[in-house]
Amino acid sequence: MSATVGQVIRCRAAVAWEAGKPLVIEEVEVAPPERLEVRVKILFTALCHTDVYFWEAKGQTPVFPRIFGHEAAGIVESVGEGVTDLVPGDHVLPVFTGECKECAHCKSEESNMCDLLRINTDRGVMLHDGKTRFSINGKPIYHFVGTSTFSEYTVVHVGCLAKINPKAPLDKVCIFSCGISTGFGATVNVAKPKKGSTVAVFGLGAVGLAAVEGARYSGASRIIGVDLNPNRFELAKKFGVTECLNPNDYTKPIQEVIAEMTDGGADRSIECTGNVKAMISAFECVHDGWGVAVLVGVPSKDDAFQTHPMNLLNERTLKGTFFGNYKPRTDLPVVVEMYLNKEIELEKFITHHTTLSEINKAFDYMLRGESLRCIIRMDA
Amino acid sequence: MSATVGQVIRCRAAVAWEAGKPLVIEEVEVAPPERLEVRVKILFTALCHTDVYFWEAKGQTPVFPRIFGHEAAGIVESVGEGVTDLVPGDHVLPVFTGECKECAHCKSEESNMCDLLRINTDRGVMLHDGKTRFSINGKPIYHFVGTSTFSEYTVVHVGCLAKINPKAPLDKVCIFSCGISTGFGATVNVAKPKKGSTVAVFGLGAVGLAAVEGARYSGASRIIGVDLNPNRFELAKKFGVTECLNPNDYTKPIQEVIAEMTDGGADRSIECTGNVKAMISAFECVHDGWGVAVLVGVPSKDDAFQTHPMNLLNERTLKGTFFGNYKPRTDLPVVVEMYLNKEIELEKFITHHTTLSEINKAFDYMLRGESLRCIIRMDA
Repeated sequence: MSATVGQVIRCRAAVAWEAGKPLVIEEVEVAPPERLEVRVKILFTALCHTDVYFWEAKGQTPVFPRIFGHEAAGIVESVGEGVTDLVPGDHVLPVFTGECKECAHCKSEESNMCDLLRINTDRGVMLHDGKTRFSINGKPIYHFVGTSTFSEYTVVHVGCLAKINPKAPLDKVCIFSCGISTGFGATVNVAKPKKGSTVAVFGLGAVGLAAVEGARYSGASRIIGVDLNPNRFELAKKFGVTECLNPNDYTKPIQEVIAEMTDGGADRSIECTGNVKAMISAFECVHDGWGVAVLVGVPSKDDAFQTHPMNLLNERTLKGTFFGNYKPRTDLPVVVEMYLNKEIELEKFITHHTTLSEINKAFDYMLRGESLRCIIRMDA
Repeated sequence: MSATVGQVIRCRAAVAWEAGKPLVIEEVEVAPPERLEVRVKILFTALCHTDVYFWEAKGQTPVFPRIFGHEAAGIVESVGEGVTDLVPGDHVLPVFTGECKECAHCKSEESNMCDLLRINTDRGVMLHDGKTRFSINGKPIYHFVGTSTFSEYTVVHVGCLAKINPKAPLDKVCIFSCGISTGFGATVNVAKPKKGSTVAVFGLGAVGLAAVEGARYSGASRIIGVDLNPNRFELAKKFGVTECLNPNDYTKPIQEVIAEMTDGGADRSIECTGNVKAMISAFECVHDGWGVAVLVGVPSKDDAFQTHPMNLLNERTLKGTFFGNYKPRTDLPVVVEMYLNKEIELEKFITHHTTLSEINKAFDYMLRGESLRCIIRMDA
């Protein structure tokens, strides 16, 4: 048993003291895990837009000081009371949403929206006692979506940890914790395109390209990529996009352009921008009779999705998904195996590398739109 | 071979000379079937709201004089050139939409929206030559949705005829031609509730009650019926509705009432009114994570379906259906077998009977809201 078990661990973490200000590397205290909690040594983390969005904290109730980070991989250091399916040394992916295995959602084959552990971006404390496990000189530092992986050690509810094959390279599979699974699962689990079909993907960032990867995996013969930023088109083609469209290049709505290109509409579409206009286009661009549109991108509070009901009555389907419909504990280990079996191509999403000491570089890459995923090595 | 083959048949039909005026029983001439057409002796027909809607012709381009009628059963009298899968004497159900078996929709497992024979309410002539097969003293009388079953004989495209088991009683199974299949199929083929689930049905007319019958058939344990007309509740309970709700009895939106009654929402909902407010309620009343809402009712031209996209992102599904997703020629014979096997209860939908001579009574019953289905016997 490690000497740290039951002890407070002092380690480095990147702390966000204020909204929008560079993170500061601090020595933090990480308390031992309480009931149903696990303390994890994070080896690699990545930066996702959601971290940036809550770090900028525009129009939100700010929760600071806070440790961000939710795409990561690590090794179990110690477990709290009641944890039976993880032991120190297990390789795990922390996930921003959980699977308690006991609620109606966890028991339903169709849902992954766990009642107990569903994402909560406002909560900065642990469920067990409403307290933080992080502190600096005894003053609490808040958690983020139950993961806070920008720390060498973090404490996570056992329901938010997927135990994976120890052979999986943690510097790669860490990105399955959020965006890549979200996009890939939206296509494979929800849109379910048949071999030879035409798939339209709206938004060609990391999540959209993961949806494209799902279309490639499914054997789609045409993959139409839609983005307002034409700088993304070259990379998108390397991911398998066969045709790129910029809605600004057309006077007619892009759904009409797609319908003309495809003899009536795409078989499937996946919306990864969160822009409500793109959502409507993504829905209206699918073929009547069998088209399925899947919404992934998160909209603004005041948005309204609007369409003529005949678009639905003509046998189109509109679905939303959350984390690609994956149940974190049950399904992520399988996704990791798919990568190990070379069914999913992951390396192409990793465009940058940095270290915990230089974590602010990852923010710069993303804010400049240069990176898909930047892997942050925690031991340097 | 019947003596009538290849000859014009003179017979009785109920002709609508003007919008909204009582039908007039006339002697009409029915020409022989042309290429890919079939002449059918209609034995029983029923009246559906769609007949009444186009007979009233409010806000429509009127097509008169016309022979309405599209829920019916009959026997093949003769077939035109190129018809290979029907022969005189076959028992058939004419259907307002068709199945050419050659277009992309017919070849898709997922669609029944045949490109060639999809419903067209404006067309009053046959596809083959753009002419009518009905006339009075040589003056054309227009067809309605390719069926025109308010005539002792009618001519129908072979793709709009389902060949059924000759043991099936035509005075019952005639109502499978439209409303009953539409509602039943919306539940069974599209919403697909699991055994023990909760299903909400909006609108408790014939189509809504057929959706209820689909829920009963599927083993739903709770069936919530929603209607603004409380007079429909007593009958609805006989069909298996377990709880009846009148939105006018509540100050809060009915979707919130249903969510409270069901610990978060119905598992499935089916909207059979065509009112856009009811469509939105039907969508928003289903449970997050797994809820599926199915739209059946046909909306007005200027309606907009509107909801917050988060309602979708929380893993709800919204689908529309047309004719219960049944392919007429492939699937209706199977539905008739289900009735013969006593899996579907059909008799309870038949509330009235009349004759062709007194067909206007069927309109009166429907306009007064008294009938579900009135069977019209053609030989009297």
